[in-house]
Amino acid sequence: MTTNKTVLSDIEIAQHSKMQPITTIANGIGLSENDLEHYGQYKAKISFDAIKRLKTAQQGRLILVSSINPTPAGEGKSTVTVGLGDALRKLGKNAMIAMREPSLGPVMGVKGGATGGGYAQVLPMEDINLHFTGDIHAITSANNTLAAIIDNHLHQGNKCNIDPRRIIWKRVIDINDRALRNVVIGLGGPVQGVPREDGFDITVASEIMAVLCLASDLEDLKRRLSLMVIGFTYDKEPVTVGELGVEGALTLLLKDALKPNLVQTIEQTPALIHGGPFANIAHGCNSVMATKTALKLSDYVVTEAGFGADLGAEKFLNIKTRAIEKNPDAVVIVATIRALKMHGGQAKGELVNENLPALQSGLENLKKHIETVQSFGLPFVVAINRFHTDTQAEIDLLQNWCKIQGVPYGLTEVWEKGGAGGIDLAEQVLSALDEEHSFQPLYSLEDSLKSKIETIATNVYGAKGVSFSSKAEKQLLQFEQYGWGALPICMAKTQYSLSDDASLLGRPTDFTIEIREIIPKLGAGFIVALTGNVMTMPGLPKKPAALQMDVTNEGKATGLF
Amino acid sequence: MTTNKTVLSDIEIAQHSKMQPITTIANGIGLSENDLEHYGQYKAKISFDAIKRLKTAQQGRLILVSSINPTPAGEGKSTVTVGLGDALRKLGKNAMIAMREPSLGPVMGVKGGATGGGYAQVLPMEDINLHFTGDIHAITSANNTLAAIIDNHLHQGNKCNIDPRRIIWKRVIDINDRALRNVVIGLGGPVQGVPREDGFDITVASEIMAVLCLASDLEDLKRRLSLMVIGFTYDKEPVTVGELGVEGALTLLLKDALKPNLVQTIEQTPALIHGGPFANIAHGCNSVMATKTALKLSDYVVTEAGFGADLGAEKFLNIKTRAIEKNPDAVVIVATIRALKMHGGQAKGELVNENLPALQSGLENLKKHIETVQSFGLPFVVAINRFHTDTQAEIDLLQNWCKIQGVPYGLTEVWEKGGAGGIDLAEQVLSALDEEHSFQPLYSLEDSLKSKIETIATNVYGAKGVSFSSKAEKQLLQFEQYGWGALPICMAKTQYSLSDDASLLGRPTDFTIEIREIIPKLGAGFIVALTGNVMTMPGLPKKPAALQMDVTNEGKATGLF
Repeated sequence: MTTNKTVLSDIEIAQHSKMQPITTIANGIGLSENDLEHYGQYKAKISFDAIKRLKTAQQGRLILVSSINPTPAGEGKSTVTVGLGDALRKLGKNAMIAMREPSLGPVMGVKGGATGGGYAQVLPMEDINLHFTGDIHAITSANNTLAAIIDNHLHQGNKCNIDPRRIIWKRVIDINDRALRNVVIGLGGPVQGVPREDGFDITVASEIMAVLCLASDLEDLKRRLSLMVIGFTYDKEPVTVGELGVEGALTLLLKDALKPNLVQTIEQTPALIHGGPFANIAHGCNSVMATKTALKLSDYVVTEAGFGADLGAEKFLNIKTRAIEKNPDAVVIVATIRALKMHGGQAKGELVNENLPALQSGLENLKKHIETVQSFGLPFVVAINRFHTDTQAEIDLLQNWCKIQGVPYGLTEVWEKGGAGGIDLAEQVLSALDEEHSFQPLYSLEDSLKSKIETIATNVYGAKGVSFSSKAEKQLLQFEQYGWGALPICMAKTQYSLSDDASLLGRPTDFTIEIREIIPKLGAGFIVALTGNVMTMPGLPKKPAALQMDVTNEGKATGLF
Repeated sequence: MTTNKTVLSDIEIAQHSKMQPITTIANGIGLSENDLEHYGQYKAKISFDAIKRLKTAQQGRLILVSSINPTPAGEGKSTVTVGLGDALRKLGKNAMIAMREPSLGPVMGVKGGATGGGYAQVLPMEDINLHFTGDIHAITSANNTLAAIIDNHLHQGNKCNIDPRRIIWKRVIDINDRALRNVVIGLGGPVQGVPREDGFDITVASEIMAVLCLASDLEDLKRRLSLMVIGFTYDKEPVTVGELGVEGALTLLLKDALKPNLVQTIEQTPALIHGGPFANIAHGCNSVMATKTALKLSDYVVTEAGFGADLGAEKFLNIKTRAIEKNPDAVVIVATIRALKMHGGQAKGELVNENLPALQSGLENLKKHIETVQSFGLPFVVAINRFHTDTQAEIDLLQNWCKIQGVPYGLTEVWEKGGAGGIDLAEQVLSALDEEHSFQPLYSLEDSLKSKIETIATNVYGAKGVSFSSKAEKQLLQFEQYGWGALPICMAKTQYSLSDDASLLGRPTDFTIEIREIIPKLGAGFIVALTGNVMTMPGLPKKPAALQMDVTNEGKATGLF
């Protein structure tokens, strides 16, 4: 996020923007009043009936926005996604946006908000950043209802013979709360439950978030919930939600959360904001329901996958593409001068200063992500997301490099100018969409779990190999025996490096990926491989964003950014 | 809740009922489209602007519904509240209902739902019983954001010198989860926080729920949040939310939750359902915002206070009455034949069988609650809430007793007949409202904390005295020194007995109330006195209601009751 003394803050821009009633936005994409379930005047869920009616409609084209490995502040991927959608509409195209919902954890922690920035935002930004339509709260409820049912099962006789030491279902909370990472519960004597080690994840890391984002309808949602493995018996057999008989209640708790949320950008481009799995510890893109619905409602859908192409895009292309039975027609790779210089060795505190050698050297990171996208057989465009601290010499260097490499690129200034700042990029994307291409996923589902992990590590990360902990080795063997070998892999890895060591910037070589543990996510339909020390519960910084937030006596939010 | 083979279940009745669009209901009480924030077609929040505009409107009359000490299934207090509102409208009165929102904990645990029953329900019952408009989720978020900020404060240097052993702010979750009552958090080494003992309460026991229910507007909400005491320093000085600087973020998280929710009954009587503190561990009635708004919008407001008159009504009359600056104009005391027989010694499994001696003897419980209401100087009516298992001889006995005692009463059959079954009660209530009366609270705020506790215990519970633990004695002394002596008392006590021992039914005498611990709730503006072993986190039963719940592929809920 850039700051500029002469411009307004994100929330000020948002609050000065004029929204259309959501009914008007809906009418513009062929939805009527009856298709909507309103949440105030500017937010609505789309009804299951409307979605059913759209089943036979023709699909538009899908544009996936990814990026290089980001700085902690992010490279403005959401901002570019919003701005590109706005730019396509400025060019007369029937475009929509499909994005994730922000988690309250990062909003209250470091980020302060996650709805784009500057003049490329989705609205109403306060609502979307806070409780929105309650989807994430519903997931927290369902996740923790299941946890309470599990511990109650232990307490009331443990008919399923669950081994309390082998429960893998964790409780969740949508807050960054490091003190809950490792806890002991059930203390206080026989009437207070069964003591055991436990831990809390952040809600967006819940398997239920992944399930909600991959389910195609209510029936599929219930089926997936029923398949979720919550732990193992004393005989090491997996125990599922179906065996506990609680999939009905969980589906009931999630029935409204499954409906996509319609909102608008500052320029009144329709946007579906739905589901929000993190991309470092989960699969990292918005719901299947939202993407499929947007594809039926418009000719061009701009969607986003979290963090760099090594995480979000890889998972989008190997996991989500199979779920929606459609591959993106083009990929946008967002790069900033700042992040490239960081990858070239410039210190984080000095990224505002011109540094051509660092920029040149950091291009290696971009190059690797381009190669990854190409390996899937997809056309792409590099989006140079301009910040006000970038010098002309730096921009020239990057553009020249693209020209020499034969890399299509577009300069974007959507943060400052909205859709008008994304016309160049939009035009490049439209030509990319016309390129012939033949998509192929990176691995076949028939490959072994181990081989799939190795394929991702060597091809996407550029590792020389993978080292599995003895625990992981044992689990892989076991999981193949349980019949889970044909599932895709969801890697959990730091977003800051192509490797599993956050400090290795640029394009590291000669490194090994360490697989610490494997976690079955049968409901989501993938197997998570945990690398290095990826955390499933973030902590708050020394000065949390929450401390700046406030609300006036009239109800106007301040301090979101 | 009664069951009757020939009638439909609560959810079937609810789903067969025809609702009016909420805009139509709003128009009927003088609210326009602009005053509403819609949540779907049948739920809306009332805007702050509308509430401000109503400030100068005249207030209607307030009817408080209370009961005798209940059975675990409850005596149908919510059902009578709804049915009485419907009956008053049948009599041509401009009546409204103000009630609490159900907590997911009991819904998923024992109760299955809490929106009235039979033909006296508020709608849409599925939504109200599940996530409704997200108010309780917002409270969970705010409560746990504060908890994360506290533990982050410890972790990041502990500038406020907080003693980790003396933190009284607990995390909450809106589920019955006994395994979270006593936990140890912050385990795993120096980067995982500071280890300490902790515990989770159910969300409705959070001080933030009480604060939300007692706040008069956003400004007052922020002021109250800022006053909340989260623990003590190593020097035993109280530490407040204001010192941590997070009251702005908490208010922001709660800004929409503070707006009352408008819904309707099966008979289309307007109802405000807002806030839901338990009455055994909190003050037990809906929000001040909702009650005040309802009083401005109608001539008669029927509202409810949780559990028996010893808990909900006592707190309503000593705490809420001061907050709304208005006392109820009449009190309804709900009694059932079943519960009276239980108080007279009949075993719980045999309450369906006629037992006149048990009924006669159980009347002592009713008598005590009548005396309590009389001691506040208020007119009252006993509502005999008829169940299909009641025999005519039992009904006759109860009616004769009322006649002999000179006790006004009304028979209600609202569960089976809706408002038509409450006409008799409504007429009795209307005459009670015409009685002259002079309300006085039970104690003066100037009394010492100890004396206030003793007054409640002896006058309302009929105890011979109060015994304070040495911890409580010390706390009382300390709290008076901190200047908190002039706050009212919120007793935490079992709902099943007039005493603090759930097994003492009827009208126990010769017992002492044991005060275990005192908890400051400076934001709520009261001091909680914990008696016996009242729990602030319930557990799930052997067969949780959740296991019966389901949803069809079309999104229709089943198994709520």
